[in-house]
Amino acid sequence: MIVDNALYHQGKRVPLGEGDDQSLGAVRVPCAPGDFQWIGVHDPSREELAVIADTFDLHPLAVEDAGDSHQRPKLERYGRTLFLVIKTLWYVDEEDAVETGEINMFVGRDFVVTVRHGQGIDLAASRRDLEDRAQVLEHGPMAVLYAVCDRVVDEYERVGAALEIDVDEVEESVFSPARTDDSTRIYVLKREIAEVRRAVMPLREPMRKFATAADDEITAETATYFRDVADHLQRVSEVVDNLDGLLSSAFDAHLARISVQQNEDMRKISAGAALIVVPTLIAGIYGMNFDHMPELHWAYGYPFALLLMVGVSLGLFAWFKKSGWL
Amino acid sequence: MIVDNALYHQGKRVPLGEGDDQSLGAVRVPCAPGDFQWIGVHDPSREELAVIADTFDLHPLAVEDAGDSHQRPKLERYGRTLFLVIKTLWYVDEEDAVETGEINMFVGRDFVVTVRHGQGIDLAASRRDLEDRAQVLEHGPMAVLYAVCDRVVDEYERVGAALEIDVDEVEESVFSPARTDDSTRIYVLKREIAEVRRAVMPLREPMRKFATAADDEITAETATYFRDVADHLQRVSEVVDNLDGLLSSAFDAHLARISVQQNEDMRKISAGAALIVVPTLIAGIYGMNFDHMPELHWAYGYPFALLLMVGVSLGLFAWFKKSGWL
Amino acid sequence: MIVDNALYHQGKRVPLGEGDDQSLGAVRVPCAPGDFQWIGVHDPSREELAVIADTFDLHPLAVEDAGDSHQRPKLERYGRTLFLVIKTLWYVDEEDAVETGEINMFVGRDFVVTVRHGQGIDLAASRRDLEDRAQVLEHGPMAVLYAVCDRVVDEYERVGAALEIDVDEVEESVFSPARTDDSTRIYVLKREIAEVRRAVMPLREPMRKFATAADDEITAETATYFRDVADHLQRVSEVVDNLDGLLSSAFDAHLARISVQQNEDMRKISAGAALIVVPTLIAGIYGMNFDHMPELHWAYGYPFALLLMVGVSLGLFAWFKKSGWL
Amino acid sequence: MIVDNALYHQGKRVPLGEGDDQSLGAVRVPCAPGDFQWIGVHDPSREELAVIADTFDLHPLAVEDAGDSHQRPKLERYGRTLFLVIKTLWYVDEEDAVETGEINMFVGRDFVVTVRHGQGIDLAASRRDLEDRAQVLEHGPMAVLYAVCDRVVDEYERVGAALEIDVDEVEESVFSPARTDDSTRIYVLKREIAEVRRAVMPLREPMRKFATAADDEITAETATYFRDVADHLQRVSEVVDNLDGLLSSAFDAHLARISVQQNEDMRKISAGAALIVVPTLIAGIYGMNFDHMPELHWAYGYPFALLLMVGVSLGLFAWFKKSGWL
Amino acid sequence: MIVDNALYHQGKRVPLGEGDDQSLGAVRVPCAPGDFQWIGVHDPSREELAVIADTFDLHPLAVEDAGDSHQRPKLERYGRTLFLVIKTLWYVDEEDAVETGEINMFVGRDFVVTVRHGQGIDLAASRRDLEDRAQVLEHGPMAVLYAVCDRVVDEYERVGAALEIDVDEVEESVFSPARTDDSTRIYVLKREIAEVRRAVMPLREPMRKFATAADDEITAETATYFRDVADHLQRVSEVVDNLDGLLSSAFDAHLARISVQQNEDMRKISAGAALIVVPTLIAGIYGMNFDHMPELHWAYGYPFALLLMVGVSLGLFAWFKKSGWL
Repeated sequence: MIVDNALYHQGKRVPLGEGDDQSLGAVRVPCAPGDFQWIGVHDPSREELAVIADTFDLHPLAVEDAGDSHQRPKLERYGRTLFLVIKTLWYVDEEDAVETGEINMFVGRDFVVTVRHGQGIDLAASRRDLEDRAQVLEHGPMAVLYAVCDRVVDEYERVGAALEIDVDEVEESVFSPARTDDSTRIYVLKREIAEVRRAVMPLREPMRKFATAADDEITAETATYFRDVADHLQRVSEVVDNLDGLLSSAFDAHLARISVQQNEDMRKISAGAALIVVPTLIAGIYGMNFDHMPELHWAYGYPFALLLMVGVSLGLFAWFKKSGWL
Repeated sequence: MIVDNALYHQGKRVPLGEGDDQSLGAVRVPCAPGDFQWIGVHDPSREELAVIADTFDLHPLAVEDAGDSHQRPKLERYGRTLFLVIKTLWYVDEEDAVETGEINMFVGRDFVVTVRHGQGIDLAASRRDLEDRAQVLEHGPMAVLYAVCDRVVDEYERVGAALEIDVDEVEESVFSPARTDDSTRIYVLKREIAEVRRAVMPLREPMRKFATAADDEITAETATYFRDVADHLQRVSEVVDNLDGLLSSAFDAHLARISVQQNEDMRKISAGAALIVVPTLIAGIYGMNFDHMPELHWAYGYPFALLLMVGVSLGLFAWFKKSGWL
Repeated sequence: MIVDNALYHQGKRVPLGEGDDQSLGAVRVPCAPGDFQWIGVHDPSREELAVIADTFDLHPLAVEDAGDSHQRPKLERYGRTLFLVIKTLWYVDEEDAVETGEINMFVGRDFVVTVRHGQGIDLAASRRDLEDRAQVLEHGPMAVLYAVCDRVVDEYERVGAALEIDVDEVEESVFSPARTDDSTRIYVLKREIAEVRRAVMPLREPMRKFATAADDEITAETATYFRDVADHLQRVSEVVDNLDGLLSSAFDAHLARISVQQNEDMRKISAGAALIVVPTLIAGIYGMNFDHMPELHWAYGYPFALLLMVGVSLGLFAWFKKSGWL
Repeated sequence: MIVDNALYHQGKRVPLGEGDDQSLGAVRVPCAPGDFQWIGVHDPSREELAVIADTFDLHPLAVEDAGDSHQRPKLERYGRTLFLVIKTLWYVDEEDAVETGEINMFVGRDFVVTVRHGQGIDLAASRRDLEDRAQVLEHGPMAVLYAVCDRVVDEYERVGAALEIDVDEVEESVFSPARTDDSTRIYVLKREIAEVRRAVMPLREPMRKFATAADDEITAETATYFRDVADHLQRVSEVVDNLDGLLSSAFDAHLARISVQQNEDMRKISAGAALIVVPTLIAGIYGMNFDHMPELHWAYGYPFALLLMVGVSLGLFAWFKKSGWL
Repeated sequence: MIVDNALYHQGKRVPLGEGDDQSLGAVRVPCAPGDFQWIGVHDPSREELAVIADTFDLHPLAVEDAGDSHQRPKLERYGRTLFLVIKTLWYVDEEDAVETGEINMFVGRDFVVTVRHGQGIDLAASRRDLEDRAQVLEHGPMAVLYAVCDRVVDEYERVGAALEIDVDEVEESVFSPARTDDSTRIYVLKREIAEVRRAVMPLREPMRKFATAADDEITAETATYFRDVADHLQRVSEVVDNLDGLLSSAFDAHLARISVQQNEDMRKISAGAALIVVPTLIAGIYGMNFDHMPELHWAYGYPFALLLMVGVSLGLFAWFKKSGWL
C-alpha cells in the first residue's frame, strides 16, 4: 500500500498525492538541487515494489530484501543509493510482550523510499513532525533517514525501560517468601531480550558509520546527530545486556531457593511425622499383652496414656519449633 | 562418477558429453576469452579425480582434499585457481535430523570443477537453472561459484527455519504441565546446531572476501551478489546462535521444573502418608489393653472409631487441599 | 541550581558570584589567554541550562544530554568544546548499598561548566582544594577536568574496597557451618557490581584517550596525570571483575552446600525414624495374640520389653553416631 | 641419546654415523649450498645437548628449553636459526588415554637438530619416509620441518578421531536407560581435551606464519604445504572445541537425568511403602479391643481381613502402575 | 628501610654503604658511561622515599605509587625513567596458600631503584647472584630489570606447580568413593588462581614490549632474554587457566556426585525401612482379635511368626542387595 508521496522543496512539502493510489508509485518528479522526493509504502505488494523500483532505479537484490519482512538490520550501498534495513520494536502492555516490525529505506541523492512492514512505529507521524521543522528537512534525504532512525531508537529505549520493569517484577517474585515458579517468566523475558538484541546489535555498525561520517553522503553536522542515535543505541544495548545478566543471576537464585524450600519442606514433613509416630509407639506399648503391666490396671491408666501421647507430641513440637524444623 | 561436462560459450551450453563416462574427465576444450568449461563429479574415485586433476592442472594438495569428504569449509588459492570447500546441509523431516554433504569447487580462468560428496543438494538442477539465464553465465566461472554458494546457503536457511520449529516444540514441551524428559531432545538439537555452525562459521570469511572484492577475480558487480550470500550466511549464523542460547535457557528451565516437580511430589506423598498414618495411630490407641477404656464398651464404639478415622482423614485431606499439598 | 561561577586568572579565583542566583548563569567574562571561567550547577532546571547553553554557546544535543541524569559515561567533542559524562558512585554504609549520580562537564578553551545530578561527590570541596593549588589551576580547564575525574575515580576505589568487604562477609557466611540462605545477598551484590561496571567500563576509553594525549587539548604533562586516573580506573575494573567471579564461585559453593546439607538432613531424619520404628516393631510383636508366648507370662516381661526397646534404640543410636548419620 | 646424524646431499643421504655414539654430536660437516645435515637426539643428557649446542652454535636460552620436556609449543628465531617446540600426542587404546611427548627442532641454513622427549612419534620412520622422496629433501631443512610437523599433526587428527569415539560412548551411556555415573568419564575426557588444546592452540600461530610465508626462510611453494598443515591443525582445534561443548551439554543432560531418576525412585519407594502401610492400618483396625466388632466373630473374619489387605494392596498396585509411579 | 646502595663499575660492585642507614638514600654518585647505581629499599617510609625521589629526580606520581603496596602490575615511562610494578608470589607450604608482595622498580640510564613490599622474594640474593656475573651486569640497569623479572617469574612457575599438585589432590578427593565436601577447597583454590592471574596477566604486556624491543632502551640481545621471561609468563598463564577450567569441571562433577550419593542414600534408607515395616505388618496381623485365627493356637505359632518376620526380612534384604539398593 502506497501511503504517501511528496516533494520537499526548500524544506516545504509539495504534495504529489495522498494514500492508497497504486499509480502514485510511478510518480517521479525532477528535483532541483537540495530538493527531494519521499515516498512511503506499507506492506507493499510485489507489483507496487516493482513499480517503485523501476521509478527510482533501485537494485534488484535490495528490492528483493525490501519485499521480505524477515531481514536482519544492515546498511548496504548500491551505487549512489543507500539501503538500510532497521527492525522496529514496541512493547505491548496488555501482553507484556515485545513486538517487532521492519522498515526498509532507500536513500538516494534526491529521494527517499520508506518501506514499512508490520505495525508499531507510525511513520506518518514522523513525517508530519518533520514537515513542521523546515530547517531540518532542508538537509535533504539524510534528514529523513536521521528522523526515522531517531524515532525507532527512541522506541527501543522505551522497550528497554519496559523490560527493566518486568525484570524488577521477576526479581521481586524470586525473592519473595511465596513459592513461585518463575522459570517460565524468566525464559520468556530472556527470549524477548534476545529479540531486542537481534534488532539492536547489527544496527550499531551502520549508525557508527554515519556518526563518524565514514560515508561520503554524511556531513560533519549530520554526523553529530547520528552520533546521538548511536549513543542511544549503545545505551539500549548495555541495558539489555545488563538485564540478561540479572535474569541469569535471578534464575540461579531461583534454583537455590527451590532447593532451600525443598529442604525446609523435608524437615517440616519429618517433624510432622514424628508427632504421629511417637504416640503410635506409645499406643503400641500399651497394646502389648504382658500379664504384668501395672499401668493397664490403673483407674486413670487410659487418660494417662493419652496425656502421655499429647505431652510427648507437644514436647516434640516445641523442640522442633525451637530448632527451626517447624 | 562424472556427471556432466560442458562448454559455456557466450552464456550458452555446448555439451561435451553426458553422465557416467569416465573418459569425459580428460576432455579439455580450448576456450575463447569469456568462455569456460564446467565439469561436475559426484563421489569420484581416486582415478577419476586424478584424470581431472591432470586435465586442469590442479594442485595435488587441493586434489587430495577434494577426494576426502571430511574437510572444513575453506577458500584457498593455488596459483590462478581458487579452491573452495563448502559443506551442504539439508533437513530430513522424517528423522528430524540435519544431514551433511560437501561440495569442492575448483575455479580457474576458464573452467569450473565441482566435486560433490553425499546427497542433499542437486547441482544438476542448479546447472539447469543457470543455463536458463545466459546473462548470468556470461559472467564466467565466478557466476557458477555464486550460483552454487547461493543454492547451498538457501538450503542453510531452510535448515535454520526447520530447527526453529524444533526448538519451539521443545519449548512447548518444557513448559507444558506434563512431566517430560526433554534433556535428550535438547541435547540432540544442540548437537545439530553445532553441526550447522561448523558448516556456516568458516564459510563467512571466504564469502566476506568475495563480497568485498578482496580477490582480484571478483568484479564490483559480482561482489554485490556475494554480499547477498554473505548476508544470508550471517542471518543463518545469528539464527542458530539465538537458538543455541534459547536451548540453554530452556534446559535451565527444564532443570528448575524437575526440582519443582520433585518438591510437589514429595509434598503429595507426605500428605498421602498422613492420611494413612493418623488413622493407624487411632487404631493403635483403641488397641491398647487398659482395663478402663469407656469407648471400648460403647455399643457404637467400633463405628465411632471408624468414623473418627475417616473424619480425621477427611479433615487432613481438606487441609492439604487448601494449602496446596495435594 | 547554579552553585558557583568564578573566573580563574593566573591560577587565582576572581569571584563572579556565589550560590543560587539564576542570573549568574548568563555571566560571561572575557578571558585573557590562560584564564578561564568555571561555572558549577546542581540539578539544574531546563531554564538554567538554557541560559548557560546560550552564554557558552553549547551544542543543543549535549545540553539535552546534560539535562538528563540517565546518560552513560562518554566523551564527545562538539567543535572546540569537550563534553564528558561521568557517573559518580558512593557507598552508603547504613544500607550496604552503592548509590549513583552523574556529572556532566563542558570544557572549552576558556571555560568549564560542571553539571551535577544527585548527591555523593561534593564538587564544591574539589573546587576549594583546587583553588589552594594555583600551580595546577594555571594549567587551565583541563586541570579542572582532571581534578574532577581524579576525585570521582578515587570514590570508585572506595566503593570497590567496600564491596570487597561485603564479598568477604558473604564468603564467610557461605562457608560457615550455619545454615544460611545467601542467594539474596549474592544477587544484590552482583547487581551492585554490575552497576559499578556500567560506570567504570565506558569511562576507560575517554581516560585512555586523555592519557595518550590523543586529544589535541592535552599536553604530555597533563596526559601523565590522566594516565594515573586511567590506571586507577583499570584497577577498579579488575577488582570488580574479580569480585564478580568470586561471587559466582561462592554461589556455586552455596548450591553445593545446600545439597550436602539436604543429604545430611535426610540421613539424620532416617536415623531418627529408625529409633522410633524399631521399638514399634517390638511393641507390635508383644501385642500379638498367640496362646503360647512365654515372655508375656514372665514376672518381668514388661520391663524386659521396655528395656529391649531402649537397648535396641541405644544400640542404633550408637551405630548411627559412629557412621556419621546422627 | 644421539639417534642419527646424516648429511643430505642433493636429496640423498650421506650417513655420518648411526645410533648411540655420543661423539656423533660433535660431527659437523661443511655443507655445499643446498645440502644440509640432520642430527636426531632422543631424551638427551645435558652433556649431549651441550656438545651439539657447541657444534651448531645454538643459543643457550633455546638449548636450555630443549633440555626441558615441559615447554609450551612455540616458534622463536635466534639469529638465523629457528627454534620450534612442538608437543606430540598419541592415543593409547588400552588405557583410553592421550599421552604427550615433545619435539624440539633447531633449523638453520644447513642443518636440522631434532630433540625428541618421550615416546609416541617415531622420527626415525619419518626420516626414512623422507629419504625415499629425494625431491622433497632437496628443499632443504624446511622440508624436514614440514615433514615432522605434518607427521605430528596427522597424529593429532588420529587423537581427535579417537576422542570423538570416546565422546560418542559417553553420550550413549548418558542417554541409556541404565543408571550410570558418567561424571568421572566426562571429567577425564575434558581433561584430555584440555591437553590436546594446549598442544594445538599455541602451534597455530607458528604454522600460520609459515603458511603465509611471513618468515624469510619460507618460499611460496613451501608455504602452500604449511598451509595444509595449518588447515589440519585448524580442523583438530575445531573438533576438540566441538567435543568439549558436547561434553558440557552431555554433562548437563547427565545431571538432569540424575534428578529425574531420583524423582522416579522417590515415587517408586512411596508407592511401595503404601502397599505395606495400608494393610498395616487394616491390621491395626482389627487389633482394636472394642466389645462390639462383628467381623471379629465371623467364621471367616480372619481370611476376610487377609483378603481385604491383599485386595487393597492389589488395587493400589494397579493404580500406581497406571499412573506411572511403579 | 634502605637495604643496599652500590655503584656498579664495569660490572663490578663499588659499595656505597650497607643496610639500614637512612642517609644512604641521598647518596648519588656521578656515573661514567656504562656504570650505574643500584639502591634497594624494603617497605620504605614516606621520608625515605621522598629522599630517594629527590636524589634520582623521580616523578611524584610514580613515587606515590611506589609507596603504596596495592598497585596492579604495570610499566610506565616518565621521561627517561621506566617505572615497573611487579607483584611477587610465593607458595607457603604450611598453609597451602599463595602469598603476595610487590616490587617497584625505577630504571634510569645510570641507576636502578628497587622498592620491595612484603616478604617472599629475596632481592639481596638476586643482587649477590648478579654480582657474581660481571658480564651480565655490564649490560647496565636493564640487566638488573631482567634479573629481577626472571627471578619473580621463576617463582610464579613454582607457585603454578604447587597449585597443580593442589588441584590433583582435589581431583582425587572428588572422585574418591569417600563422601567429601570439596566445595570449600575448590573455592579457595579458585580464589588463589584468581590472585595469580591478577599478578600474571597485566605483566604480559610489559614483558612483550621488552621482548620485542619496542622500548628504545632495549637492545636486540636483551630482548631475547626478556622473550624468555615473556614465554615463561605465558606458560604460567596457560597453566592457571587450565587449572581454573579443571576446577570448574571438578566442581561440576562434585555436584553430580552429591546428587548420585543422595539418590543412593535414599534407596538405602528405603530398603532399610522396608526391613522394619514389613515385620511390623506381620506383627499387626497376629495382633488382630479375630475369634478364629488358627495360627494363634498352634503350639509353635509364636516362633513361627518370628521366623516368618526374619524370613521375610532376609528375603527382602537379599532382593535389595541383588538389585543394588543396599
